[in-house]
Amino acid sequence: MSLPRKGRFITVEGTEGVGKSTNMNFIRELLDTANIPHIVSREPGGTPLAEEIRNVLVVPREEKMCELSELLLVFAARAQHINQLIRPALERGEWVLCDRFTDATFAYQGAGRGLSTAVISSLQDMVQGELRPDCTVLLDAPVDVGMARAGARGELDRFEQEKHTFFEKVRAGYLERVAAEPERFRLIDASAELASVQREIAAALQPQITAYQAGSHV
Amino acid sequence: MSLPRKGRFITVEGTEGVGKSTNMNFIRELLDTANIPHIVSREPGGTPLAEEIRNVLVVPREEKMCELSELLLVFAARAQHINQLIRPALERGEWVLCDRFTDATFAYQGAGRGLSTAVISSLQDMVQGELRPDCTVLLDAPVDVGMARAGARGELDRFEQEKHTFFEKVRAGYLERVAAEPERFRLIDASAELASVQREIAAALQPQITAYQAGSHV
Repeated sequence: MSLPRKGRFITVEGTEGVGKSTNMNFIRELLDTANIPHIVSREPGGTPLAEEIRNVLVVPREEKMCELSELLLVFAARAQHINQLIRPALERGEWVLCDRFTDATFAYQGAGRGLSTAVISSLQDMVQGELRPDCTVLLDAPVDVGMARAGARGELDRFEQEKHTFFEKVRAGYLERVAAEPERFRLIDASAELASVQREIAAALQPQITAYQAGSHV
Repeated sequence: MSLPRKGRFITVEGTEGVGKSTNMNFIRELLDTANIPHIVSREPGGTPLAEEIRNVLVVPREEKMCELSELLLVFAARAQHINQLIRPALERGEWVLCDRFTDATFAYQGAGRGLSTAVISSLQDMVQGELRPDCTVLLDAPVDVGMARAGARGELDRFEQEKHTFFEKVRAGYLERVAAEPERFRLIDASAELASVQREIAAALQPQITAYQAGSHV
């Protein structure tokens, strides 16, 4: 009996309105077509309890949530998500395709809110151990482009209500992550035409798909 | 102009059914009688948002909450509570009387659930900085005594549903805290008659009350 192939952990990142949902669906179809067993999830969230925590995070309320409370809620949801869903799926050999993960925490709570990278890193180690995404697709677009698209969707949650300068910081935070780990990231210009964005995404993921199909255990 | 006197931070700890509510009320009356400005709060909770987090923590549900998620939720609520309520009150010179605080985390999540003390300590430093209770009243009683009282109250929350051995570990965890910091703790035998328990509590808090009334700034 051979060991099951280890699944790949693929995350999709980006600020509001860069086309995450559309392109998450596109990647899902790529995996279907390649006959790769997978689950699709999102952060914060991914289990009923983690979705309860997401709800606490996104609902606008009168009381201002302090930055550290926000950060700890994000990692509380993440601990549950990893424990209940992500690790078990990867161990069964399935791929996990996740709408946002810890890069979003470094971008939103770190670069956006100004929390220290050292604090976020220490929580990352505490909650994730060695777990990191195998590949992260960053959909990048100028903030104005994304905000116009997100605004057209109607009612905004607590994060979407943030101001332009906040999202500029978040975008810059994401681009710093790419600069620090270029081998893990696939930086995609999300302001381009959709057909071209999706050609780039498909090309970016093909090596992972080919390696998995060839039965790589790593 | 003189600086306002710094408030005292008093916490009351103990396992289920040891008489925390009754004795919190007794301490509140002591402070009223001594004309000491104070607020009364509880953990997890103390602000509307922190109470939302408390609700996520205590409601029984099908999905098992992982230990680390529980711990991070406790500290997320605590960060908000400190930021919004505890620090501002202490800085105004008010006393804060709180039903449970971080000793409960070491006892329940540490000794009870088996999470590492080092992890809890690092979150304590991250969330509290230098803030620690000035005085902690530990109401201690054999687990059977407390469980009989708690059981008589009707429907049990997710913590109260735990088994006898869990509460034995929690009680032992509390007693370890007392051994490590005897000067901060007032260990009270809560299985004694109420009048005697309350005489002990009053005597234990009198030095703090006298010092505050004398205008001590420390």
